[in-house]
Amino acid sequence: MSSNWKAVAARKRAETLRKIPQAWVLARDVLQEARLRRDITGTFISSLLSWEERLITDLDSVSLALQISHGVYTALQVTSAFCKRAAFAHQLNNCLHEIFFEDARQRAVELDEYFETTGNTIGPLHGVPISLKDQFHVKNVETTMGYAGWVDTFEGQKDTSQEFKIESQLVTELRSLGAILYCKTSLPQALLVGETVNNLIGTTMNPVNQKLSCGGSSGGEGALQALGGSSLGVGTDIGGSVRIPAAFCGTYSIKPSFGRFSYRRVANSSPGQTIMPSAIGFMATSVLSLKLIMTSLLSTKPWLRDPDVVDMPWRNIAELEVRNTSLCFAVFTNDEKVTPHPPVIRAIKMVVDAVKKAGHKVIQWEPPSHFEACDIHQSFIRADGGADLWKQLGLLHEPLIHQLAELFGTGPVEPTPLLEYQANSLKRKDYSARYMEYWNSTAEKTGTGRAVDAVILPVAPHAAVISGKFYHYGYSEIVNLLDYTSVAIPVTRADKTLDPFDSNYKYMNSVDHQNWADYDPEIYDGAPAGVQLMGRRFDEERMISVAGIVIDALSYTHLEH
Amino acid sequence: MSSNWKAVAARKRAETLRKIPQAWVLARDVLQEARLRRDITGTFISSLLSWEERLITDLDSVSLALQISHGVYTALQVTSAFCKRAAFAHQLNNCLHEIFFEDARQRAVELDEYFETTGNTIGPLHGVPISLKDQFHVKNVETTMGYAGWVDTFEGQKDTSQEFKIESQLVTELRSLGAILYCKTSLPQALLVGETVNNLIGTTMNPVNQKLSCGGSSGGEGALQALGGSSLGVGTDIGGSVRIPAAFCGTYSIKPSFGRFSYRRVANSSPGQTIMPSAIGFMATSVLSLKLIMTSLLSTKPWLRDPDVVDMPWRNIAELEVRNTSLCFAVFTNDEKVTPHPPVIRAIKMVVDAVKKAGHKVIQWEPPSHFEACDIHQSFIRADGGADLWKQLGLLHEPLIHQLAELFGTGPVEPTPLLEYQANSLKRKDYSARYMEYWNSTAEKTGTGRAVDAVILPVAPHAAVISGKFYHYGYSEIVNLLDYTSVAIPVTRADKTLDPFDSNYKYMNSVDHQNWADYDPEIYDGAPAGVQLMGRRFDEERMISVAGIVIDALSYTHLEH
Repeated sequence: MSSNWKAVAARKRAETLRKIPQAWVLARDVLQEARLRRDITGTFISSLLSWEERLITDLDSVSLALQISHGVYTALQVTSAFCKRAAFAHQLNNCLHEIFFEDARQRAVELDEYFETTGNTIGPLHGVPISLKDQFHVKNVETTMGYAGWVDTFEGQKDTSQEFKIESQLVTELRSLGAILYCKTSLPQALLVGETVNNLIGTTMNPVNQKLSCGGSSGGEGALQALGGSSLGVGTDIGGSVRIPAAFCGTYSIKPSFGRFSYRRVANSSPGQTIMPSAIGFMATSVLSLKLIMTSLLSTKPWLRDPDVVDMPWRNIAELEVRNTSLCFAVFTNDEKVTPHPPVIRAIKMVVDAVKKAGHKVIQWEPPSHFEACDIHQSFIRADGGADLWKQLGLLHEPLIHQLAELFGTGPVEPTPLLEYQANSLKRKDYSARYMEYWNSTAEKTGTGRAVDAVILPVAPHAAVISGKFYHYGYSEIVNLLDYTSVAIPVTRADKTLDPFDSNYKYMNSVDHQNWADYDPEIYDGAPAGVQLMGRRFDEERMISVAGIVIDALSYTHLEH
Repeated sequence: MSSNWKAVAARKRAETLRKIPQAWVLARDVLQEARLRRDITGTFISSLLSWEERLITDLDSVSLALQISHGVYTALQVTSAFCKRAAFAHQLNNCLHEIFFEDARQRAVELDEYFETTGNTIGPLHGVPISLKDQFHVKNVETTMGYAGWVDTFEGQKDTSQEFKIESQLVTELRSLGAILYCKTSLPQALLVGETVNNLIGTTMNPVNQKLSCGGSSGGEGALQALGGSSLGVGTDIGGSVRIPAAFCGTYSIKPSFGRFSYRRVANSSPGQTIMPSAIGFMATSVLSLKLIMTSLLSTKPWLRDPDVVDMPWRNIAELEVRNTSLCFAVFTNDEKVTPHPPVIRAIKMVVDAVKKAGHKVIQWEPPSHFEACDIHQSFIRADGGADLWKQLGLLHEPLIHQLAELFGTGPVEPTPLLEYQANSLKRKDYSARYMEYWNSTAEKTGTGRAVDAVILPVAPHAAVISGKFYHYGYSEIVNLLDYTSVAIPVTRADKTLDPFDSNYKYMNSVDHQNWADYDPEIYDGAPAGVQLMGRRFDEERMISVAGIVIDALSYTHLEH
């Protein structure tokens, strides 16, 4: 077999496509039509399905689980519909790394037999198809993480006898809960880009607006969900990697704190950087589906199998105590480094107006400098001097993607000296403590007797992004530096009429200039614009409630207009 | 003022002694008598007190809190009694770094006034004197951590305007709960020795057997409690530092998991080593006092002020579910590197026999190699190449204590390269996961339907230790590497008749040889021998119950004889 990376990648892409059943292969004219459209989600992709497939794949995971458990649909019906829609999504949008529909069908048949025989489901995710970012190891399935050099290996190592055998703990948990695993989704090289592009499959664009990127690093997940090919997926997040694609593709996402869910046996970039680690994140077509997967996983007590997971079951009380309460939000629209584009500012304003209208208070968020946070965050991302990335690229002499050129140059550099790395760890602690002090101090301003309940802030300074023009990750990275919980929700779409370019805007600095200059209302038109709702560490329960409250408030406002 | 370390140390020692009221200064003949005795605890020190002072200082913290809250004693009576006994303890045993009895008396008066006026206590620790290892910052009090170079500075830095002002979060929490702070206890240079010796105060010996060390690093705490000068204290533990002195001095101790209690603003050695961090630990004269301080501290929600603390209140259910249950213990007597001395082996056997007699099961513990654990543990302790230690010593050109010579040589060496440090972090995760898998696997052998409930193991391979002869920390370090919870309890005392030297013992290796050869039944006679009860991560509640069960079983066995 060729060890030329281009050949390996071409073979891998072809193999993946061959796993799509002949009946689901799209006609050339459909593909051509898709290329001409800006938006291929919604009716475009739906029209390729039967009415029943459409009905099924438009349901969220909560409804799917419920309907399967009531015998409305079989697991096989649901699985087939999602596999088909995912197959279409991949052909239209190039969002999958791995396809294993046959294993999925087989599992669905088993689950249906179990249900028929016992009258019971085997778990709360019985029959629910769940897609996985291609960092998760699934038995009998390859993990490439987008590296051509990982094809036919275990994380780049040949002949370990672990390839196709090792399974991530979280994946095994999902199986035990009844989930159907059927595909793995695309991601960018090294996982450190807010777009999705690698040498193995090329680029995944944004199916809602094909002029833009789907975001990243869990970009294939975002795109697949926007296309209806998945209602629930698992990604990871060290700088915004579930929240960015969710916001860019118009789906829901939560980045829990590290240690709430198992990262054990999940492939990763620079895994030894354990000071500010990447966290498991979830993406779904509804907020309650995020809750469904979290409560389900925690019901398996992952802390008994993964030493990094904290013994903390789902706390219903924390979730409930927020409801029917008058809340106080804080809003943070501008970090004074890069001003968000008009669609994002409008989305933030819509949320602020909606929650105010619903009787909640909103104050300004004036935390310790987010500049400082960016610097500390970067120090961990750059710590290994690119050693891990260049090692993986070196396996088949793959080129670096241009989006990483600024971060990783032309080859590995000296890693950060240990004492500096340790000092950075203390800087992070100190910053986090000051941030917490600030948060606590807001109790004097909220009028609720509590500190601020959640912070409304941008996910990124743009609604989706033009490829190559993602300059500033500060709005999402702050959450990782602090290891906070954050929920991203879709709010609106960029609208060339409502969101004109402001040529009088005074740039704050060169990056701000670049970002602002790149706002083109014509190109961005139609791109989803979401916001983040940031809570504290291990605040997953409360933030699910808060997100629900905000969504209700937004819906109510929408209804009024 | 002199900047010669000897002069600075002499001045500091004299200043500390001057803080003892004239009326409490011990006569020369008492000091001389003390030097001639092996054991200066119990009746020896008690005889220097009035009957009421003796009665008060013999109570544990739970009784003290209760009696104060019922008006049996005032906070001032209790404080005065403990200050007096601590003053005697220090003069006899050299166990204090800082004395602030006047602040303590003043606080006691305030608390008494509050109680008299309102009829209420201000918190669950109202009036309870609590001693602190000299890593904790207390307002108006110096922190030297045993470094002459830290005198008149803030952690070695001059003119920071923070000296005497900064307070550790946990200290502020204790104050808010009503605790009386009155002294800080001695520790060894760099905190990395199982003895207590530094250039500032010299050596703290074991008051139960003055031929031996009190242990370390929270050695002053152990000694002070053995002498009755404290019923409850706070220490820290990265390799056994609360459990070792507790076992050596015959008191109780718990090392909780890191992140359960606040380490914020606590002085430390090599604080940037955050991968396998030192944890807050507690020492007390009863197990329920350990529970009292833990529940009290958690009632203040420390996670709202310290980003490293996990949002986890005290879980009564976890504590209760162990009671009235038939448990399965595992026993681990020998790590195959160093065989414990006969008194420790007998202590382990006593515990095993007692819990069996009480109806519990005991199986053998056969975990992944503890050798491997020692290597990984060491890699973190050595990571900075001694940079921190030599920096502190360099302030006044202090010499290294001989106990650290093997670990830190004659000056700083190159720190571990970052990539190796990161790889060690992954080794630790992998080892922890395998250890957990092993623990889970015992469910097949216990007969309880659960995995092993707790592991009985030595704290150290000797009952206390002859100075300079502590060669192997593996029994305690395993708990830190895994970040598990462990409770140390006193079991028996070394007895030259019951614990003879076995000259036929076959050494496993040179360290084992050294350790075994150093067992002298005559010298060790009377030294406390304790054991550890090891639970899992964040298992504090359950382990308090388990310790109670073991203590009951032991008491019952004692009664029978």
